[in-house]
Amino acid sequence: MNFRAVFAIQGLLLIFLGFFMLLPLGFSLYYGDDDLIPLLISAGITLAAGFLLRIRFRFQGELRLKDSFATVSLGWVFAALFGALPFIISGYIPSFTNAFFESMSGFTTTGATILADIEALPHGLLFWRSLTHWLGGMGIIVLSLAILPLIGVGGMQLYKAEIPGPTPDKLTPRIQQTAKSLWGVYVLLSVIEAVLLMGGGMNLFDSLCHTFGTMATGGFSTKTASIAHFRSVYFDSVIIVFMVLAGTNFSLHFHSLKGRISAYWKSEEFRFYLGTVFFFTILMTCANALTFFPNAFESFRHSAFQVVSIATTTGFTTYDFGQWPAVAQLILLVLMFFGGSAGSTGGSIKILRIMILVKQGRAELKKLIHPRAVIPVRVDGRPVQPSVVINILGFIFLYLVIFVTASLIMSLLGLDMVSAFASVAATLGNVGPGLGSVGPAAHYLHVPLIGKWVLAFCMLAGRLEIYTILVLFTREFWK
Amino acid sequence: MNFRAVFAIQGLLLIFLGFFMLLPLGFSLYYGDDDLIPLLISAGITLAAGFLLRIRFRFQGELRLKDSFATVSLGWVFAALFGALPFIISGYIPSFTNAFFESMSGFTTTGATILADIEALPHGLLFWRSLTHWLGGMGIIVLSLAILPLIGVGGMQLYKAEIPGPTPDKLTPRIQQTAKSLWGVYVLLSVIEAVLLMGGGMNLFDSLCHTFGTMATGGFSTKTASIAHFRSVYFDSVIIVFMVLAGTNFSLHFHSLKGRISAYWKSEEFRFYLGTVFFFTILMTCANALTFFPNAFESFRHSAFQVVSIATTTGFTTYDFGQWPAVAQLILLVLMFFGGSAGSTGGSIKILRIMILVKQGRAELKKLIHPRAVIPVRVDGRPVQPSVVINILGFIFLYLVIFVTASLIMSLLGLDMVSAFASVAATLGNVGPGLGSVGPAAHYLHVPLIGKWVLAFCMLAGRLEIYTILVLFTREFWK
Repeated sequence: MNFRAVFAIQGLLLIFLGFFMLLPLGFSLYYGDDDLIPLLISAGITLAAGFLLRIRFRFQGELRLKDSFATVSLGWVFAALFGALPFIISGYIPSFTNAFFESMSGFTTTGATILADIEALPHGLLFWRSLTHWLGGMGIIVLSLAILPLIGVGGMQLYKAEIPGPTPDKLTPRIQQTAKSLWGVYVLLSVIEAVLLMGGGMNLFDSLCHTFGTMATGGFSTKTASIAHFRSVYFDSVIIVFMVLAGTNFSLHFHSLKGRISAYWKSEEFRFYLGTVFFFTILMTCANALTFFPNAFESFRHSAFQVVSIATTTGFTTYDFGQWPAVAQLILLVLMFFGGSAGSTGGSIKILRIMILVKQGRAELKKLIHPRAVIPVRVDGRPVQPSVVINILGFIFLYLVIFVTASLIMSLLGLDMVSAFASVAATLGNVGPGLGSVGPAAHYLHVPLIGKWVLAFCMLAGRLEIYTILVLFTREFWK
Repeated sequence: MNFRAVFAIQGLLLIFLGFFMLLPLGFSLYYGDDDLIPLLISAGITLAAGFLLRIRFRFQGELRLKDSFATVSLGWVFAALFGALPFIISGYIPSFTNAFFESMSGFTTTGATILADIEALPHGLLFWRSLTHWLGGMGIIVLSLAILPLIGVGGMQLYKAEIPGPTPDKLTPRIQQTAKSLWGVYVLLSVIEAVLLMGGGMNLFDSLCHTFGTMATGGFSTKTASIAHFRSVYFDSVIIVFMVLAGTNFSLHFHSLKGRISAYWKSEEFRFYLGTVFFFTILMTCANALTFFPNAFESFRHSAFQVVSIATTTGFTTYDFGQWPAVAQLILLVLMFFGGSAGSTGGSIKILRIMILVKQGRAELKKLIHPRAVIPVRVDGRPVQPSVVINILGFIFLYLVIFVTASLIMSLLGLDMVSAFASVAATLGNVGPGLGSVGPAAHYLHVPLIGKWVLAFCMLAGRLEIYTILVLFTREFWK
């Protein structure tokens, strides 16, 4: 392994992170909160660590396949570690485990919180907390659209053939170009959402924080009651639209901004994604209207928000769905496994994989009738290689193995069955709120220490498409 | 479709079934119960229907691929329909839905019951109820080892290449030979178990009924308390051993009876199967010993029985595991997805498929490190074709789709989340008892009407390896 290069990149990452840690200072100063010094110290430590790494490790030699796995995984762990500093130093989250959990939840755009009273935190810390989402989301877009496909991980390897040029060994020029374009889209959409929220009367602070939570499909709010706090159909609607956009493949946004708006409808995944959201919204609206909400509009409003929020793995809430009928909760639990589109900031299994599975399932049935027929699975008209299908199926299997194993551990630690399942589904899928004792009206503070580390691992594994993390645990990797 | 041939075979099946319906008459006479006439009438109707079908439809032309799917699916439905007659005519299960549910549960070797008080039934009916298990198990062995592999369904298509001779279009000679050998093993093991149970002091009636329940991995008992009724370590042990044998690939038994006992250990699936059972027994023994049972032996005794019973999809119980800690119940819920070996009477996903998935998952991880390497998955030293891997992964996906869809419907009908999940897992996996309101101390009587039909469909779909049933719902099938 090229440890030098790996750590040199970590150094760069920390410097980048340290500078971003200075952003919350503005709000800290403006509101006159007590988190100014802790944030300054944290930024100082992070920058110092970054520069130290840069001095100690020079970028030398090539970054090879193994190195890129290590770089990506280590990068998120470093970010979570240093990102936890402001919480610890300020004393608002004194426990290292809790602070790390919160920080990892931020950078992985999960949005699961150990905070029982969010309003108790000063503005600078809350801004930093939401900013970790936005930075994590930024990392994910580049990772899933520019880096992972090249090394054969992630749903996007489908489109691998489309990205000519760099081999995995020489990543630089083309990727930088792609990254810039995608970040442009990300920033642009963020600005529009923040402006729309401010237009509705939200202050700058809350607008930015909720924009970060939306665009990264994260889910951290500045309010304990999440979006329910604002009791506004306007805010609900704006956030629904931008959650849908954040759960869409960002390369589609890029194409449409270049004038090719038809790109959306040409994408089978996008149609499948909207169809899924639509179908479950209708189903849940009916289920809730029959048994819970007094009128159909209320049912539709909250059902639509919750379906979009969970399906895109955002995790904002406008209602305590822990009170809803069992079928509504079950739908949400199932949606936790969907995730947004590949190449979006959404986590979990991703619509593209599920769509390919559905098609493969149909193809297998056709093959039973015509055993000698060759029935390729096609996406957007192009056949999908069997090796890609196997890779996707293997991904889902490993996803389920982690889900089951972690659920067993959580129940071993004393969580009831629904909470055990939901806590893992919500963290592995980077959703945030679960069901039962980790439901939307609750938090993860009461989860036993070991459980918090297991769930933090789930967040990371889910965020980095399982393979990227699991490969580190193979013998081959260390040979 | 060759309807004539399909219905001609149904006729044969009903004649076969009608004669077996006469067997319980012996016990009915001996115990002087009131089910003698109802059983006679049912047998008469079944035989008459069988002969009518035989006269009306002559076996003509070839039995082709499509026809074999229809024959198998229709066969189980016919068996369940006519098998329900004794329950309805006797008036002990007057509702058609309930009687069909019980009969389908029998023939699919599920063991889920709608009976709240099993001892209330007369001996003839109880014997018939257990006999449906044994006949269903007999059907499954032939189906999974001799017929399904030829048409590319079921985990055993792995060994397809090994069975030379007949093409799917001309099934007869070789299959008859295979079927005879396997039935010989099935009958032999059944006789040994019944003798061992009687040797421990169980009467002939209970011995036979519980043998049927064991060898078919069914789970119907003649006692409401299931095996717990007998409070005997000896009976527990005998039944554990025979559940393990019933969950083993029957072709291994066949080889070992021919003197090749090493066949067991040469089989990777068998080693994986024993390893799985062993691992979860230890895990559950520890979990239960820590929090529930006063001493380690009690914990081991009941944990081992329950792990084997659920993993092999039998469903007998020696303890109300609904009272056990959440982690033990979660382990059982997970085991409901394992099932016995391929080619056994066990249901569910089957160990062979899970083993291949685990290997494929590992291979995918290795491929990340060595992208250009060809890493075939091997079972018993022979490489598994990618098309088989995709078929297996497709199977598991369809299995999960049915699981999730049916769970949603069950929760829509008012079941709580755990009961909804468990009722589907336990019927789709042909296990029997679930958790929550359908747990071992409860029954399925309270499930709403529609729910019973959904669960009966799950039993059938699970028993016939999903594909066989789902293919009937494709457009291609009816073209």
